[in-house]
Amino acid sequence: MDKLKPYPQQYYQDYLNLEKILNSQHLLSQKYGHSAHDEMLFIVVHQVYELWFKQIIYELESLLEIFHNNEIQENHISIGVSRLERIIEIQKILIDQINVLETMTPMDFLDFRDFLIPASGFQSVQFRIIENKLGLCLKDRYSYGDNSYHSYLNESDQKKVSKSESTLSLFDLMEKWLERTPFLDWGSTSFWKEYESAVQEMLSDDRNLIKTNDKLSKTEKEKHLLEYNKTEASFGAVLDSKEHSKLVKEGKWRLSHKATQAALLIYLYRDQPILYNPYQLLKKVCDVDELFTTWRYRHALMVSRMIGRKIGTGGTTGSDYLNKTAEKHRIFSDIGALSTFLIPRSALPKLPTEVENNLGFFYHSMVK
Amino acid sequence: MDKLKPYPQQYYQDYLNLEKILNSQHLLSQKYGHSAHDEMLFIVVHQVYELWFKQIIYELESLLEIFHNNEIQENHISIGVSRLERIIEIQKILIDQINVLETMTPMDFLDFRDFLIPASGFQSVQFRIIENKLGLCLKDRYSYGDNSYHSYLNESDQKKVSKSESTLSLFDLMEKWLERTPFLDWGSTSFWKEYESAVQEMLSDDRNLIKTNDKLSKTEKEKHLLEYNKTEASFGAVLDSKEHSKLVKEGKWRLSHKATQAALLIYLYRDQPILYNPYQLLKKVCDVDELFTTWRYRHALMVSRMIGRKIGTGGTTGSDYLNKTAEKHRIFSDIGALSTFLIPRSALPKLPTEVENNLGFFYHSMVK
Amino acid sequence: MDKLKPYPQQYYQDYLNLEKILNSQHLLSQKYGHSAHDEMLFIVVHQVYELWFKQIIYELESLLEIFHNNEIQENHISIGVSRLERIIEIQKILIDQINVLETMTPMDFLDFRDFLIPASGFQSVQFRIIENKLGLCLKDRYSYGDNSYHSYLNESDQKKVSKSESTLSLFDLMEKWLERTPFLDWGSTSFWKEYESAVQEMLSDDRNLIKTNDKLSKTEKEKHLLEYNKTEASFGAVLDSKEHSKLVKEGKWRLSHKATQAALLIYLYRDQPILYNPYQLLKKVCDVDELFTTWRYRHALMVSRMIGRKIGTGGTTGSDYLNKTAEKHRIFSDIGALSTFLIPRSALPKLPTEVENNLGFFYHSMVK
Amino acid sequence: MDKLKPYPQQYYQDYLNLEKILNSQHLLSQKYGHSAHDEMLFIVVHQVYELWFKQIIYELESLLEIFHNNEIQENHISIGVSRLERIIEIQKILIDQINVLETMTPMDFLDFRDFLIPASGFQSVQFRIIENKLGLCLKDRYSYGDNSYHSYLNESDQKKVSKSESTLSLFDLMEKWLERTPFLDWGSTSFWKEYESAVQEMLSDDRNLIKTNDKLSKTEKEKHLLEYNKTEASFGAVLDSKEHSKLVKEGKWRLSHKATQAALLIYLYRDQPILYNPYQLLKKVCDVDELFTTWRYRHALMVSRMIGRKIGTGGTTGSDYLNKTAEKHRIFSDIGALSTFLIPRSALPKLPTEVENNLGFFYHSMVK
Repeated sequence: MDKLKPYPQQYYQDYLNLEKILNSQHLLSQKYGHSAHDEMLFIVVHQVYELWFKQIIYELESLLEIFHNNEIQENHISIGVSRLERIIEIQKILIDQINVLETMTPMDFLDFRDFLIPASGFQSVQFRIIENKLGLCLKDRYSYGDNSYHSYLNESDQKKVSKSESTLSLFDLMEKWLERTPFLDWGSTSFWKEYESAVQEMLSDDRNLIKTNDKLSKTEKEKHLLEYNKTEASFGAVLDSKEHSKLVKEGKWRLSHKATQAALLIYLYRDQPILYNPYQLLKKVCDVDELFTTWRYRHALMVSRMIGRKIGTGGTTGSDYLNKTAEKHRIFSDIGALSTFLIPRSALPKLPTEVENNLGFFYHSMVK
Repeated sequence: MDKLKPYPQQYYQDYLNLEKILNSQHLLSQKYGHSAHDEMLFIVVHQVYELWFKQIIYELESLLEIFHNNEIQENHISIGVSRLERIIEIQKILIDQINVLETMTPMDFLDFRDFLIPASGFQSVQFRIIENKLGLCLKDRYSYGDNSYHSYLNESDQKKVSKSESTLSLFDLMEKWLERTPFLDWGSTSFWKEYESAVQEMLSDDRNLIKTNDKLSKTEKEKHLLEYNKTEASFGAVLDSKEHSKLVKEGKWRLSHKATQAALLIYLYRDQPILYNPYQLLKKVCDVDELFTTWRYRHALMVSRMIGRKIGTGGTTGSDYLNKTAEKHRIFSDIGALSTFLIPRSALPKLPTEVENNLGFFYHSMVK
Repeated sequence: MDKLKPYPQQYYQDYLNLEKILNSQHLLSQKYGHSAHDEMLFIVVHQVYELWFKQIIYELESLLEIFHNNEIQENHISIGVSRLERIIEIQKILIDQINVLETMTPMDFLDFRDFLIPASGFQSVQFRIIENKLGLCLKDRYSYGDNSYHSYLNESDQKKVSKSESTLSLFDLMEKWLERTPFLDWGSTSFWKEYESAVQEMLSDDRNLIKTNDKLSKTEKEKHLLEYNKTEASFGAVLDSKEHSKLVKEGKWRLSHKATQAALLIYLYRDQPILYNPYQLLKKVCDVDELFTTWRYRHALMVSRMIGRKIGTGGTTGSDYLNKTAEKHRIFSDIGALSTFLIPRSALPKLPTEVENNLGFFYHSMVK
Repeated sequence: MDKLKPYPQQYYQDYLNLEKILNSQHLLSQKYGHSAHDEMLFIVVHQVYELWFKQIIYELESLLEIFHNNEIQENHISIGVSRLERIIEIQKILIDQINVLETMTPMDFLDFRDFLIPASGFQSVQFRIIENKLGLCLKDRYSYGDNSYHSYLNESDQKKVSKSESTLSLFDLMEKWLERTPFLDWGSTSFWKEYESAVQEMLSDDRNLIKTNDKLSKTEKEKHLLEYNKTEASFGAVLDSKEHSKLVKEGKWRLSHKATQAALLIYLYRDQPILYNPYQLLKKVCDVDELFTTWRYRHALMVSRMIGRKIGTGGTTGSDYLNKTAEKHRIFSDIGALSTFLIPRSALPKLPTEVENNLGFFYHSMVK
C-alpha cells in the first residue's frame, strides 16, 4: 500500500543514517602507519556501547517523566515496569558483549594501545548521566585519586553531567512516590504498628525457646542469645525511627523511614493484585542495580586480563576502579536489603477488611 | 606518560565519533507529529546490527586475504580460527539482542509501522555482502516473489552487492585450500583407497551379521537389509566420484570430490597435532553457518509474533522469508554432513609411519 | 538457633539424596570394556534434562490446578504468570545446555553410540507428559513412520502418557477461562460489534484510498487491491464465526470463537490495569511455546551435526523428526497469531465508562 | 540393526537410572505439614548443581592424569584444552542457572527455610574437591569464623576432602610441565636474558623521554618519574629472581620463577604453531578461574537478595562468605597477571633460527 500513504517512501540505509554511522570508524593505528587489525573491534564495540547507553537514557527519561507526576495512575506503573524490563534486557547484552571484546588478546591490544592515550571509557559522558539519573550521589562516588570524574571531561561534557546531577533522580522520585502510598494507614491502627508487634512476638518466642530449653548447656545458651541479639538489632534498625536516622547519618541507609515502610508493605503483601505492579517495579529497579554491578565487575575482570597491573589507557588502574565502584555505586541497595525484614506469611498481620477491599479489584462483585 | 608520546592526546568522545553516532536517530513518528516512544529502540537496535555487520565483514575480508595465498602458513590457520571465533561471538550477540527488540509489543510497533514503509531489513546491503563473501550463490538464494534481492536496493547499493557476488568467496578459497592438502597421498597407497576398504569391510561385516542371524524372521531380515542398504547408499554418495558428480549436478552437494576427501581426512585424524587447527577451522566455519541459521530462525519467530500474518514493513511476509532462508541459505552444510561418513577410531586405517611423522611435531625428538 | 527447632538437623548431602543421585551414572562403554571418556557427559546431560523436566511438570500441575477453578481470583493469575516465568527460565537453560553437549565431537560419540541402541530421547516419558499437559493433541503429533510415540515405550510408561493425554490440558483450561471473561458484554453493544465496525471502517478507508488514487496505473491498482483483499480475508477469518468454524474444521485454528474474542480484547486493551496480568499470561504462554520450538530446532541442528544423515540411536532420523516437530508441535500458535488482528490504538473503540471503571482499580477514588 | 549387536537392548529410562533420580526429591515442608511450593525448585536446582560438579570432577581427573606424565605428547595438550572447554561450558550453565533459582522470591523461601537448618551449599563436598583439585591451598582459603571448612562436614566427607587436599593439583602439575619447557634455552643465550634486555631498553627509553623533555615542569617531571618507577618495579618483580622469592614468601605470587618464565614465553610467542595449544591451555585455565569467580560473585548477589543481612541457612552469612572467596579463592591469578609483563611485538627478541625451526612444523619443507 506504499504509494498510498501520505508519508514519503523510506529507504532502510537512509532511515538509519547508515552513511554516517558506518563511516565513523577511523583507526589511529592506520593513520600512524602501524595498522593494527584489532583496533576496528575496539572502536565498534565502544560505539555499540554508546548506542545502548543512549537508549537506556531515553528509557530513564521516560521513567522520570512518569514519576514526576503527583498522581501516578495504575497503568503508568506498568509502563514503568516495561521501561525497566527493556533496560534490563539491554544490560544483559552489555554484559554478554564483553565476550566479543575478549576475543582480542592482550598482545593484540598492545599493538595500538599507546595511540589512544589518555582516552578511556572513564570519559563516557552518557554512562555518568545514567548513574546520575538513577540516583548516584556525587558524595557516594568512589573517586579515583583526588580528582572528581568531572576533571577527565572537557567543558561542554562537564556541563552535561552537572545538569544530570542537579535534577531529581529515579531514586528521589520513587522515594516520594513510596511516601505517598495510601495503604500505610489502617484506620484505628497502622501497618507499622501491626508489623512491629508481629516482629516483637516472633522475636520473643525465639528468646523464650532459648531461655527455657533445658537441653542447652550454659555456653550454648549464651551463643544462641548472642545470635538472637544480632537478629533483634537488625530488625531494630528499621523498626525504630531513631535507629533509622542514625543509620542515615552514617551513610548506611538512604531511603526515608516512611518510604522504607511503604516498600516493606509492598514486599510483604505483594500477593494483593494492586501491589503486583509496584512490587515488580521495586524488583526490577534492584535488577537494574545488580546488573550494573555485574557489568562493572565483569568489566574489571576483562580489563585486568587485558592489561595486567599496568596503567590503564586513561591513566587509571581501570580494573581496580571498576572493582571498587561495583559495590560502592549501588543505588537501590536499601530495597535489596528489605529481605532482611520479611516475616513468614503465617506471622503476617491480617489486613483489615476495608484495606483488603481497596487492595482488590472492584469487579469481583460483578462476576457472577 | 601522555605528554611524552609523539601522538596527540585522544578524547574518548572524539575518538569514537560519538557526536555523529549519537545524533543519527531521527524518529519519523516525531517528525509526523505522532510521537511513538518505541521507534527509538527500533532505530538503535538496527544501527547496532549494522555496526556488528561492519565488523563481521572486516573479519571476513581478513579471512579471504589469508586464504588468497597459495602457501598458507600454519600460524595463518590459527589466525583464521581466531577471526572465526570473533565472528561467532558477535553472532551470539546478534541472536541475544532479539530479546531487546521483543520488549516492544505488537501494539507498540503498530504506532509507527506505517511511517517506515517500505524500508525493511531486507534492504541491508551489509548482510547481503556477508552472505556473498561467505559463499552464498545467487542461484541458491530463496527469492521472494519473482524478484531478485537486487530489485529492493538503489543503484549504488546494487553495485556494492554485485561486486561481492563476483569475487571469490570463503567457500571457494577454502575449497581450493583443502584440495591442496599434501596428506592425501600415502606413497604406494592413498588415504582414499584405505578409507574406502575400511568402509567396505565395516559394511560387509554388518551385512553378514544380518544374513547369518538365525534369530531373525524373514520380515525382520528384510527390514534390516533395507536399513543397511540406506547406510551403504549414503556412504556410496561420497565414496564414488560418479555418484558425487551426480549429487553436485542435482544441487545436493557442492564441495569438490578432492576437497571432500581432504575435509574427511581432517575430521578423521584430527587428533594429529598438525590437523588440530585445520579441524578447528572446519568446525568454526560450520558454527558460523549454524549461527546465521539460528539467527534467521529466531528472527522469523520474532517477526511473526510482531506482525502476525500481516504484510511486513518491506512489503514481504518477512517471517516466511526468514524461515525459508534459514535452511536454504546454509553454505557449509557439506562440511556439517561429514559426520555421516565417520567410522569408529578402531576401524580407522593406520597412518603410514612417514605420514604420521609429517603430521607430528619435529621437536619431539629433541625433548629428552 | 538450630537445636531449638522442633525439626531435626539437616545435612546437605542427605537432604538432596546425593548418595543416590551421584551413583546413578553407569557407563556401558566401561561395562563392555571399551571405555569411552565422553559417555559420562552424555549420561549427566540427559539426567539434568530429566530433572528439569520434572520441575516443569511440577509447575504445570500447579498451573492446571489454578485454572481448574471456575472462579479464578486475580492474584491467582499473577501466581500463574510466575509459574510460567519459572518454566521459561528453565527452558532457556535447556537450550543453552546444548552447548555443553556439543563439546562432544561426532568421533567421540561414535566411541559408545552402538552400546545405547535403541535408547533415545524419543523415549523420554516426561517430555511427552509436558507436551500433553500443555495441550498437544495426539492427532496433531508428527508421527515417525507409522508408529505412535506409545510404541517406543514400555507398558508402564505407556500408561503414564495415556493418563496425561486424557486429562484437561493447559490449553483446554485457559480456553474455558477466556470464554468466561465478563468484559465482552458492553451493555447495549458488545466488544465484538465495536471491534468489527472499527475494522470495517479501517478496511474501507484503505480500499477507497486505492480506488480514488489517480497516481496509480491500472496494473498498480489491481496489485494493491489484491493485497488489500488478502488483508480483508485474514481479518474475515476471525471476524466471521462461520469462517472461524471452517478454519477449525480444517485444523488451521483451534481456539474457540469466544475465547479468541476474549484473547483479542486482552491484547487490545492490555493497558487497563486489570488486564495487565491476563496479558502477561497470554504472552508467557506463547514464550513457553516458542522456547520449546527453539529448543527442538536447536536440538535438531546438534543431532544433525553429531550423526550426519545416519540413522539415530533410537532408530529414528532424530534430526528430521525434531525439525518437523519444531513447527508442528506448537500449541498456542493461535495466541501468537493475534498480532494479525491488532488495530492501531487510535482506531480502538472507546470503552464504555462503566466497563472502564470495572477495568480500573476501585481505590483511585479514595486517593486524594 | 538392534537385534544383531552383541549388546543388550537399552531403554532410555533404565540407562539413565531415572527411577532413582526422579524419586529423590523429598520436600521437608510437605513432611512437616507446611507444604511450600518452591521447595521442589530448591532441591532440583541443587541436585542439578551437584550433577554438573560430578562432571567437572570427572574432567579434572582426566586432566590430572594427562599432566601426571613426564612426557606429554602434543595431542595430549589439545585433549587437555578440550577438557577445559567442556568445564567452561558447564560453568556458564552454573552461572545462568542462578536465574532459575531467582524466580523464587525471598517470601517464598521463608516458607521452608527453617526446615533445612543447618544444611547449606557450604557443605558441598564435591565443590571442595573441585577447589582442591584445581589447586586451592588450605592456607589460602578464606575461613568462616575460626573453623575450617572440614568442621561442617561429617566424618566420611571429611576423609574425601582431605584426600583431595593431599594429592597433586592441576596447579602443581601444570607448574611442573611449564618448568620442563625445552624452549627457554637459546643456545649461547637464553629467552630470559633476551627478554630482560628488551625490557630494560624499553624502560630506559621511557625514562630518557621524561628526563630530556623540556616541555615538562619540574612537578610534572616528578609525577611522570613516579609513575615510571611503578612500572619499573612491577617488571622488576618478575625479572629478578630475588624479588620473585620475596613475593612468593609474602603470598603475593605462587608460580615458580622457571614456570613463570615459560608461561611468559608462551604468551609472547603464541603465534608460533607449536605454542598455539599451550597458549590455549593457559588461557582456558584462566577462564575456569574467572568463571568460578564470577559464579561466586553472582551467587553472593543472589543470596543477599534472598535473605538480606540475616543469618544464612547454614549459620553463615553466606553472601559475605561468597563475596570474600570470589577474589581470595583464585588459583591461577599469576597466569592472568602475565599481561603485565607483555611487550609490543615490535620489541620482541627475535627467535634464533634453530629455535624457530623447532617451534614450526616439520612438514613445511615437504610441501612444494
